[in-house]
Amino acid sequence: MSQSQIPVAILGATGSVGQRFISLLENHPWFKVVALAASDRSVGQPYAKATRWVLDAPMPGYARDMIVVPANTDAAQAKIVFSALHTEIANELEPQFAKAGAAVCSNASSHRRDADVPLLLPEINAEHIQLVEQQRKNRGWSGCIVTNPNCTSTGLTIALKVLDGEFGVKKVFATSLQALSGAGYPGVPSLDIMDNVIPNVANGGEEEKVEWEPRKMLGRFDGSGIEPADIQFSVHANRVAVIDGHTVCASVQLEKPVAPEVAIQALRDYAAKPSAANLPSAPRPVIEVRDEADRPQPRLDRMTGKGMTTVVGRVRRDPIFDLKFVVLSHNTIRGAAGASIYNAELLTNENLLRRGY
Amino acid sequence: MSQSQIPVAILGATGSVGQRFISLLENHPWFKVVALAASDRSVGQPYAKATRWVLDAPMPGYARDMIVVPANTDAAQAKIVFSALHTEIANELEPQFAKAGAAVCSNASSHRRDADVPLLLPEINAEHIQLVEQQRKNRGWSGCIVTNPNCTSTGLTIALKVLDGEFGVKKVFATSLQALSGAGYPGVPSLDIMDNVIPNVANGGEEEKVEWEPRKMLGRFDGSGIEPADIQFSVHANRVAVIDGHTVCASVQLEKPVAPEVAIQALRDYAAKPSAANLPSAPRPVIEVRDEADRPQPRLDRMTGKGMTTVVGRVRRDPIFDLKFVVLSHNTIRGAAGASIYNAELLTNENLLRRGY
Amino acid sequence: MSQSQIPVAILGATGSVGQRFISLLENHPWFKVVALAASDRSVGQPYAKATRWVLDAPMPGYARDMIVVPANTDAAQAKIVFSALHTEIANELEPQFAKAGAAVCSNASSHRRDADVPLLLPEINAEHIQLVEQQRKNRGWSGCIVTNPNCTSTGLTIALKVLDGEFGVKKVFATSLQALSGAGYPGVPSLDIMDNVIPNVANGGEEEKVEWEPRKMLGRFDGSGIEPADIQFSVHANRVAVIDGHTVCASVQLEKPVAPEVAIQALRDYAAKPSAANLPSAPRPVIEVRDEADRPQPRLDRMTGKGMTTVVGRVRRDPIFDLKFVVLSHNTIRGAAGASIYNAELLTNENLLRRGY
Amino acid sequence: MSQSQIPVAILGATGSVGQRFISLLENHPWFKVVALAASDRSVGQPYAKATRWVLDAPMPGYARDMIVVPANTDAAQAKIVFSALHTEIANELEPQFAKAGAAVCSNASSHRRDADVPLLLPEINAEHIQLVEQQRKNRGWSGCIVTNPNCTSTGLTIALKVLDGEFGVKKVFATSLQALSGAGYPGVPSLDIMDNVIPNVANGGEEEKVEWEPRKMLGRFDGSGIEPADIQFSVHANRVAVIDGHTVCASVQLEKPVAPEVAIQALRDYAAKPSAANLPSAPRPVIEVRDEADRPQPRLDRMTGKGMTTVVGRVRRDPIFDLKFVVLSHNTIRGAAGASIYNAELLTNENLLRRGY
Repeated sequence: MSQSQIPVAILGATGSVGQRFISLLENHPWFKVVALAASDRSVGQPYAKATRWVLDAPMPGYARDMIVVPANTDAAQAKIVFSALHTEIANELEPQFAKAGAAVCSNASSHRRDADVPLLLPEINAEHIQLVEQQRKNRGWSGCIVTNPNCTSTGLTIALKVLDGEFGVKKVFATSLQALSGAGYPGVPSLDIMDNVIPNVANGGEEEKVEWEPRKMLGRFDGSGIEPADIQFSVHANRVAVIDGHTVCASVQLEKPVAPEVAIQALRDYAAKPSAANLPSAPRPVIEVRDEADRPQPRLDRMTGKGMTTVVGRVRRDPIFDLKFVVLSHNTIRGAAGASIYNAELLTNENLLRRGY
Repeated sequence: MSQSQIPVAILGATGSVGQRFISLLENHPWFKVVALAASDRSVGQPYAKATRWVLDAPMPGYARDMIVVPANTDAAQAKIVFSALHTEIANELEPQFAKAGAAVCSNASSHRRDADVPLLLPEINAEHIQLVEQQRKNRGWSGCIVTNPNCTSTGLTIALKVLDGEFGVKKVFATSLQALSGAGYPGVPSLDIMDNVIPNVANGGEEEKVEWEPRKMLGRFDGSGIEPADIQFSVHANRVAVIDGHTVCASVQLEKPVAPEVAIQALRDYAAKPSAANLPSAPRPVIEVRDEADRPQPRLDRMTGKGMTTVVGRVRRDPIFDLKFVVLSHNTIRGAAGASIYNAELLTNENLLRRGY
Repeated sequence: MSQSQIPVAILGATGSVGQRFISLLENHPWFKVVALAASDRSVGQPYAKATRWVLDAPMPGYARDMIVVPANTDAAQAKIVFSALHTEIANELEPQFAKAGAAVCSNASSHRRDADVPLLLPEINAEHIQLVEQQRKNRGWSGCIVTNPNCTSTGLTIALKVLDGEFGVKKVFATSLQALSGAGYPGVPSLDIMDNVIPNVANGGEEEKVEWEPRKMLGRFDGSGIEPADIQFSVHANRVAVIDGHTVCASVQLEKPVAPEVAIQALRDYAAKPSAANLPSAPRPVIEVRDEADRPQPRLDRMTGKGMTTVVGRVRRDPIFDLKFVVLSHNTIRGAAGASIYNAELLTNENLLRRGY
Repeated sequence: MSQSQIPVAILGATGSVGQRFISLLENHPWFKVVALAASDRSVGQPYAKATRWVLDAPMPGYARDMIVVPANTDAAQAKIVFSALHTEIANELEPQFAKAGAAVCSNASSHRRDADVPLLLPEINAEHIQLVEQQRKNRGWSGCIVTNPNCTSTGLTIALKVLDGEFGVKKVFATSLQALSGAGYPGVPSLDIMDNVIPNVANGGEEEKVEWEPRKMLGRFDGSGIEPADIQFSVHANRVAVIDGHTVCASVQLEKPVAPEVAIQALRDYAAKPSAANLPSAPRPVIEVRDEADRPQPRLDRMTGKGMTTVVGRVRRDPIFDLKFVVLSHNTIRGAAGASIYNAELLTNENLLRRGY
């Protein structure tokens, strides 16, 4: 079978992350969207009618006339299921799809903490994909669930991976300035954010995620499970008047303190392992380090590497810890839909899709 | 002489901070504006014509027809001179005014680091005003210079003062989300900040100020000078799309760690010393602590206590240090013009204006 | 009975217009808020808890602990009932209150077109209040309903009244740039309006209102009814990224064409009749004409006359009709809550509140 | 000579329109950028260093290391010169280049009103290009100047062309809501436009242009000159908080009134003449008509047809004239840099570049 015919479905296709999936999967070299699933009030309608499209690129033609189906396992003959479902629904539905044989590539937070579910960023922890075998054994599934992290964890963890690998990371203070699209649609009311900042995201839940998720992703796969990295995090999350692109200010304590220039060189030199580097959605480059004193900026830098590259800037000495820097990552591309697609490509390449297709 | 007749001048009267001075001094119970000074291109024109007014409250009537004068010491028969000058000009002119006998209450950064110049926030370090005697002795001036801190240092330092006094502060990580008015007018181009964040203020200079100024303000006056507080600061400064009101996310390490509720009670209970508490511009209250999970917010909270109150929220445990919280302060009122006026009130009340008026 | 003891209720008290009522009625010289009514999910809670406050001025102390009651006529012993209800609910409830004897001062559109219901802007058509007698006769009510117009009609109609009175208005093209607060809360999603314009308000309904309402308000009361003014309107309505303050660009054809300066003078000279001019909420002045080439602007001018003044600018020749100009009006003060309060003051002053209180 | 080797220069290359030229000319099938010219303070520097890049797409690699040259005719061996110069400078320099043999495709307003200078939108008035022969005869130039209209005139005129051709246009009321990029960089200060509208563009000059330019473009070329169309315009220009994309609300009086559906069909059916339709930058389609009640919107629709398509929506009856509608056009692509490039393609295709290359 040609790879370009791998059938995929999108769950939660009408929401803002669902729209990104549809946009990014247009002309994908391996995957073909065969089902768009959403909630009852959209089912049965053509996608173009069921959806309030919020991206600035036009809705791809292929999706316009597809009839929205219910998010159940009958509906999709898909080998890969992309999930942009809300947490509670994902919690219930994703295992059903995995049991039915689908590789569920999920953007939901429901299963990120499960010991046998990989929390993947292929450019930094592609080897965690091996957890899938463990997962199948534990759960008796022919399919599987793999997850990508929270959009704010994403860029920060990628930058930390390089520093941790080279110099050892001990402690991290991070403050996020997060974009509106992270809250979905309708999301944040305009009266709440015009001329304003909201010093809280997801009622505090965001901070908890960003204090935990990087530890799993930076952890070591020991053949049967993940040993979380021994790094302490303290996170402040804020919502700001930006459409796309999460900015994170970080201060990092290292085991082997280095000068900023050394860290910059390490960030620039970093390359993903070949298994992750050559996939269609791989970021090119993984990390871009800007030299300007006032970059990265979300509006100018979020589309670096088609929105998949992590952009770092202002790497400098920290007066308390060792290094200070700023990380920018596109929250609905690298931090959401693009992440799940990249994970699906890794699964495909590692021959981890179920047999029988 | 009636206090209500103390003549005051404003240097840099046409800029955005100058405008705040004019607005806040309307109907001031003690001070009467007798001179508005600005640069050559404004001199000789009525203030209303020379100025592009950017505040949302209308220009006070008293100022409209005043003729703008040059910023030299001939011009003003003022006992108090408020300086909203740019650093380089302030550096040159402020000493001339002080020598000529004026009490210069400056918002400029030029003299903040001088050992004999008080860096004042009357609600927390009113006793530093005593440096003025030292300054007069050192410099042979009949007038004096007193300064207020950078707008981002302001709210943070006020909150830290309470924590330091009660529990001892050792280390502080702080990330600012700063308003546009802090950059003056025309300041930040709209194309730079719409749908964007700029992760840098004043080309890095802001961070340096906020890492240094609080140490002086939280220091101890030992009769002849200030012993800076032994606290370490690491600061990230960002510009966001907010008109007024600087938000700061802080993580603090204490000598005597306490539960958040204890810290909240201390912040709520704090009162300025009577010499500072009863002045016309004193914040009422000094600190307001919000209980909501998503406050303070600049648009909703910046005008608390007429823009002079420091608003604190989200006081909670920090996973690395001891406490995390958010501080909001109005950057052109408590953080600039209102600050200088409050300082001038303290000088007046302490009988530190020059004789002969 | 002292006027300062007139008891009033607010229906729809938790919404954004309801909040303006609460804010504007703090310290009102005649009215005392005795009941705050809202929908079921708020009933029984203290107002401060039931409400997501969105105004930048703090919630008045008097309202914080009032327990929200249901919007039924039992609940309120109020002589005046301010209605910030949604159209369908207003349609049902307002007549019940009027029947029960209350003077309903409504911001809802439900009854604006009823022939015996005044659509009032006291500074221009105070005499329309006489329709109340007709209304009571028709309906057998001891109370009454009086309405204020749509927020976009408001400023435009006030400016047109002056021109119509002096020079006769025949045709009007008007394009609005409307603020977000006009859509209530949560209202417009931030993702819809950041870096954007929405060229439609209320699905076209706004345009229809602004093409009709001014004709009634500019009409003549002939003793028993209103003869609508014979003026044609064409309106384009847009939503823009402004918090408060509706801007309207208008081109006007006159019966007696005049030079812009003559029109400006007429606008400046306009004064309300004494019965309307001396009420507590009367705009002072009714109209302010700005001379600058780039005013009025919502952020700078919306609070003119405490938000009750209509601000006009750029009065100039129109190449097709006779005059072009720009009108600005605060949409939730003069265009909503302030409007209803001003109407209530007129009713009170004209002795049109029901007896028995 | 291969068309792909036509050498072109950009004057005013560092400004915001200059940046669009650089971005749009990357990979152009016919043109190759050989010179980037700018003002003295940039001359001699690599382009990447001389420029504060404000577009969200990254700076094309080809431009980064080109050394900026002075805008004089020695500098460029270019056959086509794209001018993004300011009016006064364009006024002086453009004729020099034309005299020296270059085809100057100008975005400046300096020569738009010259009787022998075409004001071109190839999809609607490609035949006006014939004025170039007249111009060469009059002025003795081997090169020429062709201009594109003001960014606000652009989309409006394209829509009007269709209506005028089919039904005859007599009168037009138009109100613009213009993007910030139209003012260049630094352009509009953020403090002027956040939470605000500025009801004036270019101190009134914008309105004058939009009341005049369409008449020339819709005029008839009679073999020696342009007979301006006999259409009356009344324009209101506003600046709003949008990055790119000018929205115009228009009311139009027709000679032969038609139902909206008929007008919509005509707009949809419109095709440019083959000479203009097949050029590389031709809009595809020329006009897109949206059916939704709230479109076009700048953020969602400005990139239609790679930013070259004119998007029309809300075509409906006008209560005074005949039709109302909304037009959206990308102001720095179709309305500026893309316009000049499209004009250059037409010149090239019509063999109107000077000989000798």
